[in-house]
Amino acid sequence: MTPNTLDLSLLLSDRPAVAAGVYTQNVVCGAPVKLNRELTPSSSIRAVVINSGVANACTGEQGDRDAEAMSSKVAAVCQLGDQQVLVMSTGVIGEMLPMQKINAGIEAAALQLGESEASLIAAARGMMTTDTRHKICSREIDLDGRPVRICGMAKGAAMIGPNMATMLAVVMTDAALRESDAQAGLVDAVDESFNCISVDGHTSTSDTVLLLANGAAGGPVLEGRDLAKFQATLVEVCEDLAQSIPADGEGASHLITVEVHGCKTRQEAVIIARTIADSPLVKTAVAGNDPNWGRIVSAAGYAGIAFDPTKVSLLVNGLLLYEHGAPVAFDAETISSSMRADHDVGIVLLLDEGIASARFWTTDLTAEYVRLNADYHT
Amino acid sequence: MTPNTLDLSLLLSDRPAVAAGVYTQNVVCGAPVKLNRELTPSSSIRAVVINSGVANACTGEQGDRDAEAMSSKVAAVCQLGDQQVLVMSTGVIGEMLPMQKINAGIEAAALQLGESEASLIAAARGMMTTDTRHKICSREIDLDGRPVRICGMAKGAAMIGPNMATMLAVVMTDAALRESDAQAGLVDAVDESFNCISVDGHTSTSDTVLLLANGAAGGPVLEGRDLAKFQATLVEVCEDLAQSIPADGEGASHLITVEVHGCKTRQEAVIIARTIADSPLVKTAVAGNDPNWGRIVSAAGYAGIAFDPTKVSLLVNGLLLYEHGAPVAFDAETISSSMRADHDVGIVLLLDEGIASARFWTTDLTAEYVRLNADYHT
Repeated sequence: MTPNTLDLSLLLSDRPAVAAGVYTQNVVCGAPVKLNRELTPSSSIRAVVINSGVANACTGEQGDRDAEAMSSKVAAVCQLGDQQVLVMSTGVIGEMLPMQKINAGIEAAALQLGESEASLIAAARGMMTTDTRHKICSREIDLDGRPVRICGMAKGAAMIGPNMATMLAVVMTDAALRESDAQAGLVDAVDESFNCISVDGHTSTSDTVLLLANGAAGGPVLEGRDLAKFQATLVEVCEDLAQSIPADGEGASHLITVEVHGCKTRQEAVIIARTIADSPLVKTAVAGNDPNWGRIVSAAGYAGIAFDPTKVSLLVNGLLLYEHGAPVAFDAETISSSMRADHDVGIVLLLDEGIASARFWTTDLTAEYVRLNADYHT
Repeated sequence: MTPNTLDLSLLLSDRPAVAAGVYTQNVVCGAPVKLNRELTPSSSIRAVVINSGVANACTGEQGDRDAEAMSSKVAAVCQLGDQQVLVMSTGVIGEMLPMQKINAGIEAAALQLGESEASLIAAARGMMTTDTRHKICSREIDLDGRPVRICGMAKGAAMIGPNMATMLAVVMTDAALRESDAQAGLVDAVDESFNCISVDGHTSTSDTVLLLANGAAGGPVLEGRDLAKFQATLVEVCEDLAQSIPADGEGASHLITVEVHGCKTRQEAVIIARTIADSPLVKTAVAGNDPNWGRIVSAAGYAGIAFDPTKVSLLVNGLLLYEHGAPVAFDAETISSSMRADHDVGIVLLLDEGIASARFWTTDLTAEYVRLNADYHT
């Protein structure tokens, strides 16, 4: 394997880990998603195997057997029990896994297992498809003098809809967690992170976020204040990884952060933020460094959420463009320059209906995105 | 006015007409939409005035006053009463109407009123923005030896979401209709036509479809079989006009017709068809003449509608690509060639949940669309 052709990653815990999973909401889901759904939450997971290039989705019963075979091969090579291996696949939909290559890859990966940062980077690179860079986030927290580590890796650059994406992520920690706390904590963290990103609004068949907690840090199972501290850091790690996906969005020239404040509920804020983030007209305007507030305000308006349009205000890159339902005078060139100069663009929409808010990350829409996706097979 | 700069259209009925209206579902709506909503349904409308270039949306109270002023100017010039004039505006959001130019345009248009086909075409061209061609559909039906005419015109090429779009349409008929029949009939016709098209999924602030029925054909108010015959033709006219909008979609190289069959309800079929039609990955695949069934099936899967994925089949341009939840062997080059050769692409998704179906029209997504919308202001 050379660095450019890494396409199989193997993560192994030296002891059984509590494992939680959150999966795609797509009715049509990949074989690995079905396999993992059966196994998580669990208290005895030892390994995760990930291949990139072929998603093993829409592959019928043969696909299900292939996902099982990947799991069994890892179990055999690493001397694990049945049901101790989770599987992730990402890549083209509808093609069968090249099982001979997969099996050889698992054997090769098992020989290269390591604890170094280089091993971590290799694993993060092995799950990449059209990603231009690997995505890793690590944190260490102190729980009464006892260090606990959280380290996550993710992949994803397109077919990124809200409610996850063709995105895969694994977050590993040496904290000791109860199975139920791991699952509930992961659901909450995903809700604020991987469920708030979009590249093209297309929810993939294979989206998976896993949390593995093996307790190697020692100490008791986390509770109370320690658990809360752990959870806050888990959210941080998930948000960092989630953001890194649209930041590396296919063909994107901007990472757009959409904040919506003043809603009745967080759910309404998320829907409005997501509708703005998914509008091709907003996304092309940002690609053109055009502070086109009309497209942003009108996108909010068709989100299906009732609000008083005469109380809406809007800021782009911190500058007020629209206040209480009417445009304000502003220097378009100043804002356009600030958009041109920075990869990050901030859109803040203020309503006056309540106190709930949400944040959503997306990409702009460029001709390069279209070229990449119109010529996918060529 | 030269043919290339037509930007104001005036439609006048020689007698009071029954008028029905269906408007944008966007919470943020243009001033003309608010004005028309107050006036329709009505039995006394005489005129419709339409300007293109400035949408008069997000323009606060001044915008409301400007829409009223347009109406009053037409009433004064054509010697009509208050509340006999409907108004439509399309173009850039957030700019104030150039009222001096609008008033001059109304005076000029009033002097050019005519009954010829050339007048009809001039009116259809006057409402165009980025449209590359005018959109007119005419039908004549025979009701027991009495000819009745239905003639519609529409505009729209982008900011076209489902539930209408920055699309405007006026359907005129010399049939005699009851106010309530006109309104209910228009709602039904729009539901099967203008509510089933999409270019970019962005529902505009200004969408309006009007039906004017002035009874000039003579004969009694339509009822029973005659009304049913009229309604069927109204649906035909609306479908023809609706299709012509994505067919002229900004930068589009294909008109995509998405049919979904075998759903529990028509509403579920519409939601699945719309989700496929709005997927940037499906739209870019079609732009690349790529029969990428995986993107189509996975888009159906994230529509939020429950169905059995093992019973799904898919045809593209009449060729079976996917059957009962698994890909079938097919010659990709044959389908790709058929896509390359034809502006129209047909996607047919078959579920096995019920007998309801729906049809939805959209465009492909090209680099040209992005260029047009990223450089809108330059």
